[in-house]
Amino acid sequence: MNLRTPGPTPIPANVRKALSQQMIDHRGVEFSEMQPRITERLQTLFETRNDVLILTTSGTGALEAVIVNTLSPGDRVLAVSIGAFGQRFGRIAETYGAEVTWLEVEWGEAARPEDIGRTLDENPGVTAVLVTHNETSTGVTNPLREIASVVKSRDKLLLVDAVSSLGSLPCPIDEWDLDVVATGSQKGWMVPPGLAMVSMSERGWAASARSKMPRFYLDLSAAKRYLEQGQTPWTPAISLYFALDVALEGLIEEGTAAIHARHARAGDRVRARVKSMGLRLFPADERFASNTVTAIRIPEGVEVADFRKRAREKHGVILAGGQAKLAQTIFRIGHLGHIPDEELDAALDAVEATLETSESTPRVVGRST
Amino acid sequence: MNLRTPGPTPIPANVRKALSQQMIDHRGVEFSEMQPRITERLQTLFETRNDVLILTTSGTGALEAVIVNTLSPGDRVLAVSIGAFGQRFGRIAETYGAEVTWLEVEWGEAARPEDIGRTLDENPGVTAVLVTHNETSTGVTNPLREIASVVKSRDKLLLVDAVSSLGSLPCPIDEWDLDVVATGSQKGWMVPPGLAMVSMSERGWAASARSKMPRFYLDLSAAKRYLEQGQTPWTPAISLYFALDVALEGLIEEGTAAIHARHARAGDRVRARVKSMGLRLFPADERFASNTVTAIRIPEGVEVADFRKRAREKHGVILAGGQAKLAQTIFRIGHLGHIPDEELDAALDAVEATLETSESTPRVVGRST
Repeated sequence: MNLRTPGPTPIPANVRKALSQQMIDHRGVEFSEMQPRITERLQTLFETRNDVLILTTSGTGALEAVIVNTLSPGDRVLAVSIGAFGQRFGRIAETYGAEVTWLEVEWGEAARPEDIGRTLDENPGVTAVLVTHNETSTGVTNPLREIASVVKSRDKLLLVDAVSSLGSLPCPIDEWDLDVVATGSQKGWMVPPGLAMVSMSERGWAASARSKMPRFYLDLSAAKRYLEQGQTPWTPAISLYFALDVALEGLIEEGTAAIHARHARAGDRVRARVKSMGLRLFPADERFASNTVTAIRIPEGVEVADFRKRAREKHGVILAGGQAKLAQTIFRIGHLGHIPDEELDAALDAVEATLETSESTPRVVGRST
Repeated sequence: MNLRTPGPTPIPANVRKALSQQMIDHRGVEFSEMQPRITERLQTLFETRNDVLILTTSGTGALEAVIVNTLSPGDRVLAVSIGAFGQRFGRIAETYGAEVTWLEVEWGEAARPEDIGRTLDENPGVTAVLVTHNETSTGVTNPLREIASVVKSRDKLLLVDAVSSLGSLPCPIDEWDLDVVATGSQKGWMVPPGLAMVSMSERGWAASARSKMPRFYLDLSAAKRYLEQGQTPWTPAISLYFALDVALEGLIEEGTAAIHARHARAGDRVRARVKSMGLRLFPADERFASNTVTAIRIPEGVEVADFRKRAREKHGVILAGGQAKLAQTIFRIGHLGHIPDEELDAALDAVEATLETSESTPRVVGRST
């Protein structure tokens, strides 16, 4: 199968082999050597000297960790949402009692830094900003550098969902001054889901010291304390650490610039082909189209579930559907992590062939402008 | 290496192979077929018709899920603690604002059902009881059947940490009327850490409907809602599902009675040998000694860390140390999950050989009475 969801991503052979290693004692020598090595490599790829903590959860657990470790009930925060994951981030904050001011952007569009600046100026009580770097549900990448600049010039805490961007798209944490940043193993890291990685700045730790939201399993201070001994507070998902260790070795060798260039090329390749088929990209402005996932409007008359089913059954290609209100509107092609040209091309061939055999009204419904 | 920690446990070859399977779409056909199959097998092995939910967390996350899905801040609960994990369970409840009455039992002893009954009678405002079935830190198994009877006769909600017992020791959930019960993949299930399984009774769901503790990632209602479509609300640790699927197939074939008998034999075998060496079991009353982990007093003059290091380096045997206040007092041998006689014997041979070469005061310091 050619798995083209925006996470989980295909696992390279050497990483799959690492997954099947026999268990070790998570309080023993091997683990305590592996964990600092992984952490250091993550810091390199995150382009940060901040602490990086690893949690045994998937991405949503990481978003929850970001919230509960830095905020208190009643805190006023700004949630910038451009899609389903932006909504989720803000809803987690609401669940734990934060007072959320929403800046909801039309799905398919990126957030405008000036709108964020104005909203912050209009809501001086806001102390933290929640933002999604790459919105997996719409295939849009926010201009995070500019957003960070607007947020930090107003001296706010910046909490970033970088689940599907960090390690694939440029996101230099220190250069952009991002306080708390979360990603997940099943994205560009080429590891199965189950591990989340969170980077914490000094400002993040200061917020953590004041924060009163309840936390136990997701407590990043405990994670930091145990990391100093090469351990985790609770039993970690050891087989995923083995996988991450091997995957990071390859990524470090490749280097961040090459990794980002590889994803940029993949994004270009997929978008060019999609447009050449006469299909329309979902993002309103192609400059903000994501280089890790492409969201494509489904031609009128084509039923998404049936289209995906035929792509899978006839061509062995797994495409992602749309989420929430986009379920009947788009399909998505993931291109992060393991993205050889031939697999992307095969996926796009399958899209084309499947649409051609669709019992539908004419396939070409317009061109992206 | 002969891994003899009480979790993670050694992974059988067929389960290791399953771990290395290529990723699949967690919103796709294969996953939605696998998840109900796993759930049904868990229900069989849990001996319950209650809902069983799977979370991507380790055991501590499961304990937190049990608490936050059933309680509200200000709820009065009784935490029965006989060791480090009993303390942890109660501390999680305190973290989320429950008013905890502690029944702390001397480490090495089991809880007495009559003490629990009396404490409940003295504290009529208590609505829920937290209890550890098998206390991994002390090698003691609580008389859960009798405890459940005392708790249920007083009409309280019963929350059970069965992380290191369920699937290894008898714990028939429906017969004993246990409301909410948690276990973890890295124990008798012979799967790497990272998945937790929680069983919820109707009474548990009723409590959940009233519960006001904040929850998002660990929300069991969301897990139940998605299970109905063969999915999970958040991306699951897919490779661990593959492993669990294969491990459960073997366990179902073996059957609960045979599984429990296997662990009982392992416990007997380890304890008999330990005593024959003149070592003392840590549990005060051998009737409550655990059949999944044996805690052994370290002979006087033997330094635990050095002893464990030599067992590992010279004999390839990984023993567990003591936790918290028992760090210098005991060591532990895990015997749950994959427990062939020859591996247990080899571990015990290593214990004997390592103690014989210990530069210590006389090795035999007493016999357990």
